[in-house]
Amino acid sequence: MRIRFGRTSGTAVAIALAVALGFGGGVWVTRSQSQTALQPFAVQAAPIHEEMDAAHEARAKAFPAKTQGIGAQPFQPKLIGRVKVFEITAKAVQWEVEPGVLREAFAYNGQVPGPTIRVTEGDRVRVILKNELPESTSVHFHGLTTPNAMDGVPFITQPSVKPGQAFTYEFVAKPAGTHMYHSHNGASQIDKGLLGAFIVVPKAGETKVASDVVMVINDGPLGYTLNGKSFPATQPIVMKLGQRLRIRYMNEGQIIHPMHLHGMVQQVIAKDGRRLAQPYFVDTLNVAPGERYDVLVTASELGVWALHCHILSHAGSARGMHGMVTAVIVQK
Amino acid sequence: MRIRFGRTSGTAVAIALAVALGFGGGVWVTRSQSQTALQPFAVQAAPIHEEMDAAHEARAKAFPAKTQGIGAQPFQPKLIGRVKVFEITAKAVQWEVEPGVLREAFAYNGQVPGPTIRVTEGDRVRVILKNELPESTSVHFHGLTTPNAMDGVPFITQPSVKPGQAFTYEFVAKPAGTHMYHSHNGASQIDKGLLGAFIVVPKAGETKVASDVVMVINDGPLGYTLNGKSFPATQPIVMKLGQRLRIRYMNEGQIIHPMHLHGMVQQVIAKDGRRLAQPYFVDTLNVAPGERYDVLVTASELGVWALHCHILSHAGSARGMHGMVTAVIVQK
Amino acid sequence: MRIRFGRTSGTAVAIALAVALGFGGGVWVTRSQSQTALQPFAVQAAPIHEEMDAAHEARAKAFPAKTQGIGAQPFQPKLIGRVKVFEITAKAVQWEVEPGVLREAFAYNGQVPGPTIRVTEGDRVRVILKNELPESTSVHFHGLTTPNAMDGVPFITQPSVKPGQAFTYEFVAKPAGTHMYHSHNGASQIDKGLLGAFIVVPKAGETKVASDVVMVINDGPLGYTLNGKSFPATQPIVMKLGQRLRIRYMNEGQIIHPMHLHGMVQQVIAKDGRRLAQPYFVDTLNVAPGERYDVLVTASELGVWALHCHILSHAGSARGMHGMVTAVIVQK
Repeated sequence: MRIRFGRTSGTAVAIALAVALGFGGGVWVTRSQSQTALQPFAVQAAPIHEEMDAAHEARAKAFPAKTQGIGAQPFQPKLIGRVKVFEITAKAVQWEVEPGVLREAFAYNGQVPGPTIRVTEGDRVRVILKNELPESTSVHFHGLTTPNAMDGVPFITQPSVKPGQAFTYEFVAKPAGTHMYHSHNGASQIDKGLLGAFIVVPKAGETKVASDVVMVINDGPLGYTLNGKSFPATQPIVMKLGQRLRIRYMNEGQIIHPMHLHGMVQQVIAKDGRRLAQPYFVDTLNVAPGERYDVLVTASELGVWALHCHILSHAGSARGMHGMVTAVIVQK
Repeated sequence: MRIRFGRTSGTAVAIALAVALGFGGGVWVTRSQSQTALQPFAVQAAPIHEEMDAAHEARAKAFPAKTQGIGAQPFQPKLIGRVKVFEITAKAVQWEVEPGVLREAFAYNGQVPGPTIRVTEGDRVRVILKNELPESTSVHFHGLTTPNAMDGVPFITQPSVKPGQAFTYEFVAKPAGTHMYHSHNGASQIDKGLLGAFIVVPKAGETKVASDVVMVINDGPLGYTLNGKSFPATQPIVMKLGQRLRIRYMNEGQIIHPMHLHGMVQQVIAKDGRRLAQPYFVDTLNVAPGERYDVLVTASELGVWALHCHILSHAGSARGMHGMVTAVIVQK
Repeated sequence: MRIRFGRTSGTAVAIALAVALGFGGGVWVTRSQSQTALQPFAVQAAPIHEEMDAAHEARAKAFPAKTQGIGAQPFQPKLIGRVKVFEITAKAVQWEVEPGVLREAFAYNGQVPGPTIRVTEGDRVRVILKNELPESTSVHFHGLTTPNAMDGVPFITQPSVKPGQAFTYEFVAKPAGTHMYHSHNGASQIDKGLLGAFIVVPKAGETKVASDVVMVINDGPLGYTLNGKSFPATQPIVMKLGQRLRIRYMNEGQIIHPMHLHGMVQQVIAKDGRRLAQPYFVDTLNVAPGERYDVLVTASELGVWALHCHILSHAGSARGMHGMVTAVIVQK
């Protein structure tokens, strides 16, 4: 099963979160005996920390917040003979990264990340790029081995695709693994959203999981985003106790992001789409621009477990959590 | 044996350093025949490089410099029945990061890093947080698996702990390994010092070493620090020839720091507290925020061996070494 | 065979590139039917994107561009008895990083990177440093184990080497692997170019390859450079189909650079000069300051394959590719 979290699942998630927010289990909140020691800064401190807490709480309670637009949706190809054909139109859009915050983005088919391409190793694939941007573009299939002329580097392997033009890429999908497709024209088109996951399922099949989640990390003009959204508009990953989850991390930004999952360990099983002979275990996974990592997580602990970049300015401020924060929610 | 380097060991270290600074062993310093080629810039250059050298030398000779306050001291729990109870009070302090340089810090029990918690896998642990800060806070046990309500994320797993309040965390210590405890309220409390090592010793015991050293890396308002101090106030690690050392690197900052040891190799044996099935060897270990690495070093070479971040602006300037620099000193 | 790419091979490379730029193989460029949708921004967009494309194309076509000075040239030692003697003179030079762009650099023997030292494990090596800089300096042999007095840390293991002075380093080369030599005086001398590769060939020999390429990554006052040059003045790696290539990545900068190779996989076989018990495969290799990685690439795909830092601002702008970009060119 591939779980996708959209507006339809918002209610269920909100309930899960409300239950988890019961603050049960042996917690005691009491006045400290040392309160008198606080007097020197009490006069100014009280209003400031209360305002900070209120802002913090409001953001936490808004999660998962509804916004317009969902990225990384499954991409159904057209079949022309045995060729799987994907048409992607690059176009400027207004993208809502968190409630009420609209940013000028470049999107494939109106989505940030673009729709997720998922084919099987050895499939013949055709990707037709239509450029409705105000500038030239191209597509590079990052991690895939294509004929050189399909590699998407303007003026090295192809002409640039000018506004109003189209360009057709065609190749056999290989090697298996978690890859990406994105612009290779200039340095800022990816930052603005011209990116998507390109997953090549091994012919022999994949490790079976209950949820298979794409996690595109990005920074730049859209802010610090996970799958195109900033907290509290990021989508949580909801699991049943004991289920297994695969997260496919992909960094499309310009900063390295160490992704920390609370409470449960991440088993790293692939790097750049290639299976590791020797998997290893982490709670904090450092993902550099261009890298992909596949991890497995067993949903062994009940509750709402934060998943966030541990460069803390990417995940919060004195006013609460923002940016690269989401959660794995484990339910009974 | 766990070595801790405080003011009491300053004299011994100074002697070790003085011996090492004998500059022996086949070094010849001579006037170059090409000196005449230097005339064009000789007029201005001489005073500048001499001033730079003097500053450089003064800093090197000051190492290891005495400062007020030592962080990461061993934390003796109170035993209440079979529960190991640790009381930590978060409070603003003036922290001396290098001689004469006082910075506004947030500290647990007056230490930066906070006192080092060390328990055994399976121990029942109670951590009582008292908040004497001017703002709300919470504690997250980074790398540990606790019940969700003990995870320390304000407004997600617990209310924030307001100034003057206390909060009690209780859980069974697991999994084994090198972990951390730190604030999870906002992005800047950790930067200011609300952090500490949380080591869970495996029930089966650990690799035997002569010295077991916590090395908390941090950046931010306290500067570039190792265990809360900047060079020359960092504490060297003093070993006898042939002894084995474990360093537990933990990055609590917002920047990735590649830690380079001169002269001797570091064997990486654990990542985020989890033993690696396949250890590997490095001289430069890239440690991202939130990550921990355990390494073993055999003190095979006599002398004073620099250990520093290889992002060189974190370790020096034209005026000499600063920030994230310390040394492994190997004696007969 | 060790390939070095200098001005003599420029013609051959240009031909290879021209062939590769044939844009053949199933590409169709057509007017899109959706062109009318572009009208709102067509008025201003046309001239801007055409100017961007022209700048982009001019840079791509200039590759590989000729510049004065080639770094990392093979370094032939003098033999004095059984000692291999390398004389290096540190001096300020004007260094041409790309056509017409001259930067104030510090160079060993007039090269950035300095000449590549290559000796065999167990060789007795003498490095005579002559300082013709306007400031003091020293040399650290990064990754090597030398006697402490030869470690190159001013005021810790030796006096600083002042302008006009010389200093002699002597040691037995160990351990085997890809290492570096560079200044250890202040934070900016390496940035300016005082660096070079120091390769210690194992006594037992190395993995056989058709090309063995040093790839020194740097950032700072010389810009984003690969072996001292910025695109389009970087040197491509030209291979015959089926040949095997070793790239020795070394980061001498202050930023972590994830190096992405298009089209072909990189097998990581060593870290910091030490062979990995368990090699792994990547297309994007994250290299931190001070780290070295040896990778093997089989030239399995014909064409011009970009090799670049995936922090895209280090590799391009709206005006085309710059900085840390080169290519592996595979010919029949």
